[in-house]
Amino acid sequence: MFDKNEYIGRREVLSRKFNSGILLFLGNEDSPINFLHNTYRFRQDSSFLYYFGIQKSGLSAVIDIDEQQVVLFGDEMSIDDIVWMGRQKTLKEAAFDAGVLEVRAGSELVDYISYALKKKRNVHFLPPYRAENKTRLSALFNIVPDQVSGFASVAFIKAVVAQRSVKSEIELIEIDKAVSISADMQLLAMKIARPGMKESEVAAAIHMVALSEGGDLAYPIILTVNGQILHNHFYGNTLKEGNLVLNDSGAETEMGYAGDLTRTFPVGKTFNSLQREVYSIVLDAYSAAVGLLQADVQYLDVHRKACMTLAEGLKGLGLMKGNLEDAVSRGAHALFFQCGTGHMMGLDVHDMEDLGEQYVGYNDTILKNTSQFGLKSLRLGKELVSGNVLTVEPGIYFIPELIDLWEAKKSFSEYINYEKVKDFRSFGGIRVEDDFVITANGSRKLGKQLAISLDEVEEVRGSM
Amino acid sequence: MFDKNEYIGRREVLSRKFNSGILLFLGNEDSPINFLHNTYRFRQDSSFLYYFGIQKSGLSAVIDIDEQQVVLFGDEMSIDDIVWMGRQKTLKEAAFDAGVLEVRAGSELVDYISYALKKKRNVHFLPPYRAENKTRLSALFNIVPDQVSGFASVAFIKAVVAQRSVKSEIELIEIDKAVSISADMQLLAMKIARPGMKESEVAAAIHMVALSEGGDLAYPIILTVNGQILHNHFYGNTLKEGNLVLNDSGAETEMGYAGDLTRTFPVGKTFNSLQREVYSIVLDAYSAAVGLLQADVQYLDVHRKACMTLAEGLKGLGLMKGNLEDAVSRGAHALFFQCGTGHMMGLDVHDMEDLGEQYVGYNDTILKNTSQFGLKSLRLGKELVSGNVLTVEPGIYFIPELIDLWEAKKSFSEYINYEKVKDFRSFGGIRVEDDFVITANGSRKLGKQLAISLDEVEEVRGSM
Repeated sequence: MFDKNEYIGRREVLSRKFNSGILLFLGNEDSPINFLHNTYRFRQDSSFLYYFGIQKSGLSAVIDIDEQQVVLFGDEMSIDDIVWMGRQKTLKEAAFDAGVLEVRAGSELVDYISYALKKKRNVHFLPPYRAENKTRLSALFNIVPDQVSGFASVAFIKAVVAQRSVKSEIELIEIDKAVSISADMQLLAMKIARPGMKESEVAAAIHMVALSEGGDLAYPIILTVNGQILHNHFYGNTLKEGNLVLNDSGAETEMGYAGDLTRTFPVGKTFNSLQREVYSIVLDAYSAAVGLLQADVQYLDVHRKACMTLAEGLKGLGLMKGNLEDAVSRGAHALFFQCGTGHMMGLDVHDMEDLGEQYVGYNDTILKNTSQFGLKSLRLGKELVSGNVLTVEPGIYFIPELIDLWEAKKSFSEYINYEKVKDFRSFGGIRVEDDFVITANGSRKLGKQLAISLDEVEEVRGSM
Repeated sequence: MFDKNEYIGRREVLSRKFNSGILLFLGNEDSPINFLHNTYRFRQDSSFLYYFGIQKSGLSAVIDIDEQQVVLFGDEMSIDDIVWMGRQKTLKEAAFDAGVLEVRAGSELVDYISYALKKKRNVHFLPPYRAENKTRLSALFNIVPDQVSGFASVAFIKAVVAQRSVKSEIELIEIDKAVSISADMQLLAMKIARPGMKESEVAAAIHMVALSEGGDLAYPIILTVNGQILHNHFYGNTLKEGNLVLNDSGAETEMGYAGDLTRTFPVGKTFNSLQREVYSIVLDAYSAAVGLLQADVQYLDVHRKACMTLAEGLKGLGLMKGNLEDAVSRGAHALFFQCGTGHMMGLDVHDMEDLGEQYVGYNDTILKNTSQFGLKSLRLGKELVSGNVLTVEPGIYFIPELIDLWEAKKSFSEYINYEKVKDFRSFGGIRVEDDFVITANGSRKLGKQLAISLDEVEEVRGSM
């Protein structure tokens, strides 16, 4: 946990945005795997963690604006709990460390909220993403579980997003740590991958790095010879000379902060010439995007710049043609780059995605394009401000199913040379990704240095 | 997946126990970590896996006894799914491989069940342990989520338990594999642990073994210098010369079968004399319990034998006194051995615990003792039959909080020498655990050989 003043300060900043009402925070429960007492690694809800810092299951809290009080609801360990799980900090101690002096039994939350609702007070809650909390909110507010999210408080969401979007110095230290551990994971994969190994062996080795540091993964590892499959969690393939390995993985620190990095490297010691060409295009797009990062720039423009750079490179390869400005604005490049250039990062790898992309990545003037293929997967579009932490992760992906679909419909045939695309059907995919913080003067790459240029990557691979 | 005839056969055996009605199976959903699309490793529900073998989220199925049909409900991948997650076996193909020819859209389940209920047909379901499935059942049957489990079908539970309790030859091959991977995990920990290492480093290394094999852990690793804390998932301590490391960990194979092993070893190369004495007692209890394993023996007697052997050893150490038969039957030994000697194992590490211990480990004549400390944590009591797979895991644990509590109440002071116990307050805990199948002639230890005697363990530690 950070110092208690950090949490007190955060809650005060939040409280000042409300004249009245109650802000309700539901922490996470333990998630059962295959029976009640066999649970996944506990992960506290990120907003709960941000305002209260306590990593225990079964908690909830309120900030009562009118009563000017903060109450934590939860139960102390019983002697049975101590026998089975060891003596830990009491809840009262943990609350004290978060600057909360009032702790009540978990069961008292129901009465607190019922009474407030009876008094016609406004109780704000955030949209739930876990079924347990949907059920709890459904019961507290007498709403059908499926419809609970629709009653979440937009004012509460916006206030939390505004605050969590700007990282403080002590948060940046944690994120730097997360990204450096992630860089260790990346370097290890780049060092140990050999022809004949299974993807699962490399994935297991880098997972170990995250665990050894006392945290875990920020998200499931993507480590695959099929880099064109964007969210690939299959690790059953064997690495073969000539393949590329795409490794998208990141650590979560003990404090809950995420890193998110991607590197693509050859299973052999060197890239072949076609791989070099495509890699160079992706790296150009990365550099062009990174070059634009600064306060007041719209991330939408960073994305456009990345797309344009990719499109120019693809035209050089003979895969695209025609007026590229038009091609990109109409979305033709999305045959090769189906997703967004980046997203916010912090306590969540896609920071605050549970609160809604429209609030985190967009605003009332910069609305998300929810229809155009490619843009609809861009999680961040609005102006950047100092303290934002985000990823830059352009890529080129050849997805046979998508190519076939578009070619059959003759989609964008004025911009795409489908004959030439046939040569790349089995190419796979390439992505590079780093994490940045927007600063007063531009941006700063987070975490330790990690091989990214063709030469740097081949140097690591050559030393194997 | 096993061959389709395996699943067809299992469903037929189950169906024959019902004259009419519908058996409803709900598969598991993806479990969100910190937002909807960042999910924990998917784990299918074990009963769904047993009867249908398909490891995909969002499925459900019915065996309609009257209509003599089996229907799988779920949705095929969209083109967006294929772009993001890659082309996989279609649901129709997966269903075919499980011997199911009828696949309907996921949304059609609601109508199927509504129609059946309208016709006053009996729809059997198993008790849910995940909130998503509580919500689904709540909506399907119009029951408050908290009360859904009370309406689960006892006939269905008993039929599933009867079938899953007796492992087939091909299941035993998988369990053997799970236990052998678990033995690799144990041996690695025993080989690499060094003074100065963090518990998390050793835990990470053995987690890697499970992942490398294409599966994962069967349950969260317990790897701790505080072995007296029975369900300890903290890995922040540093290993010190003189400490014992208790490692309770097991792999889950790709097919979903579990292994569950425990070894306790010194951080240095050798046990000290007191550790040797306590270890010997635990090993004697293990051997005595294993010696009793055979069909028709009540596991309650295996447990009693383990407890008696522990009590005799503890008397030898001067920690217990008086008539040990009485002491054990009244539960005095539970100050040192607070839990059960073993449990069923299979697709779940505590096999079928979601279906209810009273059905899995007990029956109508051998009821669980739910009040006596110690016995109330024994998950298995009934007669063993050939094909049962179970653990044997006696231990001795010195839990300061429990010692203080009992001593203050003068509990069992006729059997416990509290003065002498003081010398052991900081001893920690020792457990050894292996997995067995009951055979026609007795029992067989599962998995590859693994150091367990004092000499064997010291030999591994000495070679470090």
